[in-house]
Amino acid sequence: MTPQRVSLITLGTADLNRAREFYAALGWRPVDSPPGVVFYKMDGMGLGLFGLDDLARDQGRPDSVLGTGAMTLAQNFPDRQAVDAAWQAAMQAGATALKRPEEAPWGGYSGYWADPDGHVWEIAHNPFWPIDNAGRITIPDEA
Amino acid sequence: MTPQRVSLITLGTADLNRAREFYAALGWRPVDSPPGVVFYKMDGMGLGLFGLDDLARDQGRPDSVLGTGAMTLAQNFPDRQAVDAAWQAAMQAGATALKRPEEAPWGGYSGYWADPDGHVWEIAHNPFWPIDNAGRITIPDEA
Repeated sequence: MTPQRVSLITLGTADLNRAREFYAALGWRPVDSPPGVVFYKMDGMGLGLFGLDDLARDQGRPDSVLGTGAMTLAQNFPDRQAVDAAWQAAMQAGATALKRPEEAPWGGYSGYWADPDGHVWEIAHNPFWPIDNAGRITIPDEA
Repeated sequence: MTPQRVSLITLGTADLNRAREFYAALGWRPVDSPPGVVFYKMDGMGLGLFGLDDLARDQGRPDSVLGTGAMTLAQNFPDRQAVDAAWQAAMQAGATALKRPEEAPWGGYSGYWADPDGHVWEIAHNPFWPIDNAGRITIPDEA
């Protein structure tokens, strides 16, 4: 069983700077983000901009061309065991395995699966992004 | 200027029943939803399942074939004037107009625009879904 939660929405972008400038023109202010990614705080969740190729690679689909509107829904969990449990639940529900949960280069633990229509979910433990008992995450001001 | 908020994530589905059964197998419980759509309550926001063709039509792209992973991000507002203001902000930021805000068949007021990478945002006023001063929506138990 998995929680009814989305913790992070990730938009794959062909040009990260162009995307950042577009959201800046909309009035969005990112947190101080690592190179190659731009994070925005939302109430209890976040939105991220990421390169299309980087997103395909992160999803375990390095040779895929993600379609227009490529997007990922993420659920964060308080520890790795909970990520593994969510992976098992997804596999039992008939999800398509994209990347079994593994240690991620950014210091967390992450896997990817797709639903029957190809919508991609990431399940992750991020030790740097606090998550409360209600499952609400807080993106630090310096992400 | 627009708020840093996502109120509803809509997944376009090739087979609504198959999608609903998949999320049921994941443990997700929808609210009592109108025909042709399935809504799930999340904390201060919601996720919806919708037909791919219905979603294309709703986006003002009836002849489009939405790609795998077709998905919409929605921002809700307390009134129509705020929707119109958000539309102007998006146009000024360089968004692609898909559907200028108009009265929607479900009783609200809704428009659609796309960002430079084709990610589709809906901006909407829904008189049936309360929105608080912080912009958090509540999906009624009977949606």
